[in-house]
Amino acid sequence: MHILITSGGTSEAIDSVRSITNHSTGSLGKVLAETALAKGHHVTLITTPTALKPAPHPNLRISLIRNVEELLAQMKQEVPQHQVLIHAMAVSDYTPVYMTGLDEAAKSRDLTTFLHQENQETKISSKDDYQVLFLKKTPKIISLVKEWNPAIQLIGFKLLVAVPTEELIQVARESLLKNRASMIVANDLRQIQNGQHQAYLVTNDQVLQASTKSEIAEMVLDSIE
Amino acid sequence: MHILITSGGTSEAIDSVRSITNHSTGSLGKVLAETALAKGHHVTLITTPTALKPAPHPNLRISLIRNVEELLAQMKQEVPQHQVLIHAMAVSDYTPVYMTGLDEAAKSRDLTTFLHQENQETKISSKDDYQVLFLKKTPKIISLVKEWNPAIQLIGFKLLVAVPTEELIQVARESLLKNRASMIVANDLRQIQNGQHQAYLVTNDQVLQASTKSEIAEMVLDSIE
Repeated sequence: MHILITSGGTSEAIDSVRSITNHSTGSLGKVLAETALAKGHHVTLITTPTALKPAPHPNLRISLIRNVEELLAQMKQEVPQHQVLIHAMAVSDYTPVYMTGLDEAAKSRDLTTFLHQENQETKISSKDDYQVLFLKKTPKIISLVKEWNPAIQLIGFKLLVAVPTEELIQVARESLLKNRASMIVANDLRQIQNGQHQAYLVTNDQVLQASTKSEIAEMVLDSIE
Repeated sequence: MHILITSGGTSEAIDSVRSITNHSTGSLGKVLAETALAKGHHVTLITTPTALKPAPHPNLRISLIRNVEELLAQMKQEVPQHQVLIHAMAVSDYTPVYMTGLDEAAKSRDLTTFLHQENQETKISSKDDYQVLFLKKTPKIISLVKEWNPAIQLIGFKLLVAVPTEELIQVARESLLKNRASMIVANDLRQIQNGQHQAYLVTNDQVLQASTKSEIAEMVLDSIE
């Protein structure tokens, strides 16, 4: 099969030297790609310049993106050409709009005016003691996947931090329905460390449990076969 | 000599999954450390987990930090024990204080109240269409170096973006005086690409020019000998 995998974390530029980054090493995406290749699939991996990557392989094509805008453009093009999407990338929720000193923001009677401003300087000045950064929500790419390719089998991911397991699974179920996914892999940052990676693989009729990245990869790939 | 080198870029956490990162691969710091080791110096390299690093060497000790707070603590300890500091790290100017929805910020009559708030949630909710992030200035570590060790020879760096050469050199001169540095290496992000790295090495009595990372490293190390 032709499998599209996304991995790593997007970065949204504040200016030419600073950005807001989503923590993600790309190590799960690497294992997912390697496992899929070992099973004979063709893999397209959309990832970031700094993410961990699998070794070159004749059935592997890697496409690099940095931010949500580039990811969106790339996925819109790739999703229709694949039978499966494993969307493991940590996608930034928000992207910077405008940054200014707190004094300037405090003087304004309407903060929404800053949403229409844009920093002209290439590196924002660091003279103010306090600054205010206005951010706007990025498009929810996972919700667009089925519009681009209604037949694609979609496996999504949900990362929460320090929540009860029931809540984690509940949030995964909601994402499953909302995004018409086949499976949502739900995990909690507190349960990812020292080579362990606890995850709940939530489908319409069951919840499977994995405890390492290799187990997650095996179980995700078994589910599509 | 015992040379302390800082390299890479600090990251300031917004919450447990997002952070503001200063772009820096650590490649100049790697070349600086390698060049210093080749000349027989002892090197302590303070860098970040993701930065490029030199190969292990009997005279090399590496210390990892992530954010400005950790960098400050580490440097306060190391600076008195070294004869030279080459401070090539891209240090974050600002660190997040509090993040909230734009609606909540707009309702407030005094934005400064948010400077005393702290996000209790481990992963800030992504329900609002717009968010506001309040940031405060980090301590200027370079200005503290001579207080910790008046005898240390300090080589600082200044990165600007798309400014005229005269301005770049002028800013370097100001930093040289203010921080009692022996040399400020001034560079412009637009002139760092494809293996080239234009830099102006500004001292009290001259301005030298380098055009690759190796040249910068050679000239910086010649200046301390």
